[in-house]
Amino acid sequence: MSNKMWGGLFDESPDAIMEEINVSIDVDRHLYAQDITASKAHAAMLAKQGIITAKDAKNIAGGLDTILSEITKGSFTFKRALEDIHMNVESRLGELIGPASGRLHTARSRNDQVATDFRLFVRDTIDEIDAAFASLQRALVDRALEHADTVMPGFTHLQTAQPVTFGHHLLAYVEMVSRDRGRFADARKRLNESPLGAAALAGTSFPIDRHATAKALGFDRPMANSLDAVSDRDFVLETLSAASIAAVHLSRFAEEIVIWTSPLVGLVRLSDKFTTGSSIMPQKRNPDAAELVRAKTGRVIGSLTGLLIVMKGLPLAYQKDMQEDKAGAMEAYSALSLAIRAIAGMVRDLVPNEERMKLAAGEGYATATDLADWLVRTLKMPFREAHHVTGRIVGTATKKGVALHELDLKEMQAVEPKITAEVMKVLSVESSVKSRVSYGGTAPKNVTSQAKAWLKRLEKERKLG
Amino acid sequence: MSNKMWGGLFDESPDAIMEEINVSIDVDRHLYAQDITASKAHAAMLAKQGIITAKDAKNIAGGLDTILSEITKGSFTFKRALEDIHMNVESRLGELIGPASGRLHTARSRNDQVATDFRLFVRDTIDEIDAAFASLQRALVDRALEHADTVMPGFTHLQTAQPVTFGHHLLAYVEMVSRDRGRFADARKRLNESPLGAAALAGTSFPIDRHATAKALGFDRPMANSLDAVSDRDFVLETLSAASIAAVHLSRFAEEIVIWTSPLVGLVRLSDKFTTGSSIMPQKRNPDAAELVRAKTGRVIGSLTGLLIVMKGLPLAYQKDMQEDKAGAMEAYSALSLAIRAIAGMVRDLVPNEERMKLAAGEGYATATDLADWLVRTLKMPFREAHHVTGRIVGTATKKGVALHELDLKEMQAVEPKITAEVMKVLSVESSVKSRVSYGGTAPKNVTSQAKAWLKRLEKERKLG
Amino acid sequence: MSNKMWGGLFDESPDAIMEEINVSIDVDRHLYAQDITASKAHAAMLAKQGIITAKDAKNIAGGLDTILSEITKGSFTFKRALEDIHMNVESRLGELIGPASGRLHTARSRNDQVATDFRLFVRDTIDEIDAAFASLQRALVDRALEHADTVMPGFTHLQTAQPVTFGHHLLAYVEMVSRDRGRFADARKRLNESPLGAAALAGTSFPIDRHATAKALGFDRPMANSLDAVSDRDFVLETLSAASIAAVHLSRFAEEIVIWTSPLVGLVRLSDKFTTGSSIMPQKRNPDAAELVRAKTGRVIGSLTGLLIVMKGLPLAYQKDMQEDKAGAMEAYSALSLAIRAIAGMVRDLVPNEERMKLAAGEGYATATDLADWLVRTLKMPFREAHHVTGRIVGTATKKGVALHELDLKEMQAVEPKITAEVMKVLSVESSVKSRVSYGGTAPKNVTSQAKAWLKRLEKERKLG
Amino acid sequence: MSNKMWGGLFDESPDAIMEEINVSIDVDRHLYAQDITASKAHAAMLAKQGIITAKDAKNIAGGLDTILSEITKGSFTFKRALEDIHMNVESRLGELIGPASGRLHTARSRNDQVATDFRLFVRDTIDEIDAAFASLQRALVDRALEHADTVMPGFTHLQTAQPVTFGHHLLAYVEMVSRDRGRFADARKRLNESPLGAAALAGTSFPIDRHATAKALGFDRPMANSLDAVSDRDFVLETLSAASIAAVHLSRFAEEIVIWTSPLVGLVRLSDKFTTGSSIMPQKRNPDAAELVRAKTGRVIGSLTGLLIVMKGLPLAYQKDMQEDKAGAMEAYSALSLAIRAIAGMVRDLVPNEERMKLAAGEGYATATDLADWLVRTLKMPFREAHHVTGRIVGTATKKGVALHELDLKEMQAVEPKITAEVMKVLSVESSVKSRVSYGGTAPKNVTSQAKAWLKRLEKERKLG
Repeated sequence: MSNKMWGGLFDESPDAIMEEINVSIDVDRHLYAQDITASKAHAAMLAKQGIITAKDAKNIAGGLDTILSEITKGSFTFKRALEDIHMNVESRLGELIGPASGRLHTARSRNDQVATDFRLFVRDTIDEIDAAFASLQRALVDRALEHADTVMPGFTHLQTAQPVTFGHHLLAYVEMVSRDRGRFADARKRLNESPLGAAALAGTSFPIDRHATAKALGFDRPMANSLDAVSDRDFVLETLSAASIAAVHLSRFAEEIVIWTSPLVGLVRLSDKFTTGSSIMPQKRNPDAAELVRAKTGRVIGSLTGLLIVMKGLPLAYQKDMQEDKAGAMEAYSALSLAIRAIAGMVRDLVPNEERMKLAAGEGYATATDLADWLVRTLKMPFREAHHVTGRIVGTATKKGVALHELDLKEMQAVEPKITAEVMKVLSVESSVKSRVSYGGTAPKNVTSQAKAWLKRLEKERKLG
Repeated sequence: MSNKMWGGLFDESPDAIMEEINVSIDVDRHLYAQDITASKAHAAMLAKQGIITAKDAKNIAGGLDTILSEITKGSFTFKRALEDIHMNVESRLGELIGPASGRLHTARSRNDQVATDFRLFVRDTIDEIDAAFASLQRALVDRALEHADTVMPGFTHLQTAQPVTFGHHLLAYVEMVSRDRGRFADARKRLNESPLGAAALAGTSFPIDRHATAKALGFDRPMANSLDAVSDRDFVLETLSAASIAAVHLSRFAEEIVIWTSPLVGLVRLSDKFTTGSSIMPQKRNPDAAELVRAKTGRVIGSLTGLLIVMKGLPLAYQKDMQEDKAGAMEAYSALSLAIRAIAGMVRDLVPNEERMKLAAGEGYATATDLADWLVRTLKMPFREAHHVTGRIVGTATKKGVALHELDLKEMQAVEPKITAEVMKVLSVESSVKSRVSYGGTAPKNVTSQAKAWLKRLEKERKLG
Repeated sequence: MSNKMWGGLFDESPDAIMEEINVSIDVDRHLYAQDITASKAHAAMLAKQGIITAKDAKNIAGGLDTILSEITKGSFTFKRALEDIHMNVESRLGELIGPASGRLHTARSRNDQVATDFRLFVRDTIDEIDAAFASLQRALVDRALEHADTVMPGFTHLQTAQPVTFGHHLLAYVEMVSRDRGRFADARKRLNESPLGAAALAGTSFPIDRHATAKALGFDRPMANSLDAVSDRDFVLETLSAASIAAVHLSRFAEEIVIWTSPLVGLVRLSDKFTTGSSIMPQKRNPDAAELVRAKTGRVIGSLTGLLIVMKGLPLAYQKDMQEDKAGAMEAYSALSLAIRAIAGMVRDLVPNEERMKLAAGEGYATATDLADWLVRTLKMPFREAHHVTGRIVGTATKKGVALHELDLKEMQAVEPKITAEVMKVLSVESSVKSRVSYGGTAPKNVTSQAKAWLKRLEKERKLG
Repeated sequence: MSNKMWGGLFDESPDAIMEEINVSIDVDRHLYAQDITASKAHAAMLAKQGIITAKDAKNIAGGLDTILSEITKGSFTFKRALEDIHMNVESRLGELIGPASGRLHTARSRNDQVATDFRLFVRDTIDEIDAAFASLQRALVDRALEHADTVMPGFTHLQTAQPVTFGHHLLAYVEMVSRDRGRFADARKRLNESPLGAAALAGTSFPIDRHATAKALGFDRPMANSLDAVSDRDFVLETLSAASIAAVHLSRFAEEIVIWTSPLVGLVRLSDKFTTGSSIMPQKRNPDAAELVRAKTGRVIGSLTGLLIVMKGLPLAYQKDMQEDKAGAMEAYSALSLAIRAIAGMVRDLVPNEERMKLAAGEGYATATDLADWLVRTLKMPFREAHHVTGRIVGTATKKGVALHELDLKEMQAVEPKITAEVMKVLSVESSVKSRVSYGGTAPKNVTSQAKAWLKRLEKERKLG
């Protein structure tokens, strides 16, 4: 059966292992909608160019619509013996409309057909992922606005560094996601060229109109080189690259959730909706979803690595190796999509423990930088000298076991006589965050205005989209 | 439903996205046989130690046998709401035998249970892969013996270097596969320790006998540290490493098949069983299976990379991330298994074009090394000088457009007067390969004896195995 | 020494192994020019904003210029005890201008400083790589124009499929490189935002003007979130992704060169400039450069994978892990740059064996598709039926051992009576390639016009750039 | 210059880019000791077999000793024009001893020579890594013995699960390292075969004794197939796999150190020797070394991925691509070695905060499992029912805001009347860990005996090694 298309001159059937390794219908059946759409566009063009009759084109279109509806309804039987989605559809078309079905494959081959189908599929996937990202951004911005002045410890090296606002922290992810969306959008532009009509590899002598099919399928233009058209899988590699970077971003947030919800840290709480538990250990609020998001990074990067390996060193034009482009990519797209939605869910769900956050923000002389900056600003010390003075004042406080703002002015003046009472204003965590008004800084008013600008931008996008 | 086990104190149900990302039954259902086997061993041990009654143990064993038979027959309904294979089995056990089922989970947890199940699964997989490898070695050795004196061009840089025998070339892969088998065997030894009884992470206060369950499940011993037992996935990583290296070996042979069967090269022909064609281009004998084997390398390495990424930086003990160990690994094992069997099929199937091979082996002064070696051996020239002399003789031959053995003795003597007629003996491809009798060299008699030694070894192994 | 900056309150020196793992000067010394440029922009801005005096700023700028010239001349001594490029420069600045040097670090930290430096470095690298790509495209287009009508076998599965033109084949790579350049250009746009002024992580209370430093350094704008600014390495990941895809393209061409120059294939010859040899085997013309280009793919992808792994799961903001972003990336950029230039060299150098190409193009009924298309076009057969008829005609030719165009018209008519003498026109390789005039097809006139369009585009770019 | 060895018949010099991509001396100079050792063994064997004279062999050995001493002293000038280590050494040998140097290369080629050198290098590397691992194990065991009864929270999902002992936690890593050492030892066995004498690819006609050179170089035997001998890089791939898994282990400990030393967690403190600070924020004790160990994982895995990619799809025998095996591997070995030593340093350095550990271990009803187990053991409840009862008791405690052991017996009996006062004994963290006496469990006496057994084993090993 499997050699119905090409096996006329073959004496023997394929070996069982050959069939097992060769069959792709379990994976490429997911391309059915794109395959049918592309075939309809091709048939319409063939008729317009006089290559097939209008009647044949009409029958073909009707037959394809029937098949689409059969698949959607679940009444279509995919046959492994027919290898792939293309032959499954064409074979069924033959049953439905007879020999005219044989005219559909004029001036194309499976090489340009599958390239077209998968481009359409990836384009659809990008659109879905972009929508999920937009929704995540919205969730982040909403919570950032809500927590524009919620003070938390800002970490470097997971050590408390300086106080920041929780809203500011959330907006950092809005920026990351914005770059992610940019990468997917750029990939979409680059993929949006039509391979259809490249035929096996060399183009065709039929007077086809590739611009017409490109336009009908929403592509910006036909690809300019037929060999490239059937050999190229950049669009998969580029989207997997974008997905890998995005997955890394999500893994960072996931890691933070795991740490923040750990009972020893306790900065944030997830509700029952995003935790699993243990019937005997009520304290167990396992952040399973966050851990799984973190783990999905491996799957996504593994798929990227895998396809780069598949494509390495392949001579032009189509090689069968390229059939291995779909399974891994589809899994990676699903994993990313799931991870985005899970993170968005947790962003909406999480409740910061504001009291604990504020307390932790002030621990460990986190406003020492503010003291040093005051020395530079007010006393005109060189920064390196101010650092030194601050270090000694902190030393005094450490010995007494008190916070900076709990020191006597005199004790500070013992280190640096020019210090005045004014310094006390900069030593609280609230005044620290309020003072960071430089562009992009953590000051609540910055966060509020950034968040509002994002809200406006997202709203505008939503209306346009 | 999904929180039946642990959700007693939870007020809210999991979010839909939480359920979607958390469920693992689609993947871990493949562990059903191992899960049931391990539970039976655990129950028997609990009874032996007096932790549960003999009657309960008997009922549990009976119920588990029923479930195994239901799954095997296909009458078992896996429920996504029950999350994973463990809860699916335990829940059904409750239906079958009532409250006694609740005693099965004494002194264990899902953490050690899944670690045990997956170790058993990977161990079974190793055994299957080893058998496939043995079969591939047998195919290679058979063909090597058949072609012990078939001369072909030996390549470096894909340039003809020196004549070799086809049998010798095939035996190189027997060596590679032998190392692959060694790696899997070593991995098997290292994995063959039982995590069962490590419980959640800390061990248990019940008087269990971990040595007994280890023995019952064919493990060499229980793992020595309970935290390690539930945190470790080395056994997956190590087998994926072995699989990646093996896949690279197979990809090298696959590449050779693709090149050798290219019509411009034409050293080897695959039958209809391992080629696909085109109904209009009978010359097209696409080596699809070889290309797909080559491509599977990407999938296998991608899975390894993926799981290394998942495990990177996870604190002890069990983290939910580790649930992502199975899907990629199972795909990689399948891909490798398929690739081994496909290569074995092609080894049995391929027919070398002996005439073309011999002709190609002699092209391009491939025996020039033999001439140089003769100069060293017979005239006691330093090797570097012999190289120089040979280069000049080859230059003479090139100018005349003849092969080395077609030169007149006098023409050689014009370059180096001490050369005698004896030199002619070393200039044919047959004498060249025959002369390479150093241990491991390409001489037909070496190949025959190596092949026979391998046959004996494989046969012995087969009898033992 | 190494704790001069931060060690005031530390009682003990770092452990030797701590120093060994921590030091980065061997790698980040390559950022010296960017570090100095960024410091000059920062100092100028501080003066403009009245944060430091004009005099201090002038002294700082002068000192930095001296250091730049010392490094360029090779008279600067990098000290490992000073850990990194930033401290090496600042320490030397102190020697040169005294305490005023301590004012340079006002309102910034090493976190935003290194992020700025490395962005500038990567931006420069992108520009160099883009120029190398443009040069490669030019080489490809020149040779494509020269060989617009040189017929060669078009391969799929490394089996001869249909005749194509060598120029067409080369233009396929021009398209790939064009996408590569697009990816780097997009990455450049996305990276071109300034982290400077984000300070440690939270911004600063000094009245800095981040827009001014951004503009001075050629950035489009300052980054909008200070936490993101110091935590982000997307610009490295994205360029490594683009590099990986580009390396895969180059590996495909490298593989083709290796195969084409193999003596059994012989489609192309490289000159002595791009081959290595053996003093005794003159036939050995090892395409070392092509093999090494192919191998560099591993290095580039390995670096991408490596950095994705480094970044996975890092909480905000700066973590020391991020110091591991440079070594691998720099190696990958160098490897890619080398590979592009090596391929360009080989493109300019290679000489196709036109006779062999044409002969090979016609072997194996490569124009059978042309016959089938003629049947469809002229006799209005459905394509699938035309395939069947063609298969039978090819069968006849195969039995007779002749090419399609060597068959008698009568022999064809025995299979399909309606065939006329006109069919003979489509059966030569020249007419085959000439007929492929569909957009993007292989017809010489297409190739010529595409190549000319590219020449124009590249020339225009060159004038603008 | 660079074509002195093989360029006699070449008319043109290599292109500059060809030289740049081809040169390997910057990397393979690290093999100088192995190269000289192998050459000495080869020369001695040639003399023994009568292939060269005893006098020549003596001169060669003397010359090689001189070169070794020159390189060790730093007086040797490596020349890029001589491409690689082999030609640098041979060329200098010619200067030192004249034409007899030309006899050294009899019956070998650079293909088997470099394979031999790199095997010896990797074998040395394995031995160094094994010693570093042994030292790390010793450090872990020492601290485990010291903290056999230090109670800390045991985590799953980074949530407190059950109390464990710190010694038990450390011993988990001893087990991991033990498997790592096993993998390297297995790799060592597999690599310990000699490729020397495989010559270019086919063996040789000289009467060499490969067993003799194998023995002289400490190899177990010569490799059995000459094609395999020059084509194989399994020994690099396998050690990189082992290194990757080991790096993952180290990254897990590194992550724990980062989390434990975070001020919000505070379970452990590193001294000044393993932290970096900030002159103004004395609370900043950045665990740089731990972060860098975590990051090195990326480098190691990236090298593995990179070399797998290099080797994928290479036809036999030697391909120039294989020259790319060294740089990445050497970096990975160094990174791993550094990471092992850094972790060992931190293990010796760290000081657990025992008070904080114990407090945290008891938080959140961490002994609820002990209560459930008591119900099963004493009241013979099925485990699932015991879980349910425990859940209700925990609910009561939660409502009252007290720990389990702070509940009144009556309050427990309100849930389950059969509970007796005896239950109180199992509810403290000390009694919890003491009760976990199952094999591999966390009980202090288990930990002590495991630690002592390890000490004995390591000591014995040390004496043997």
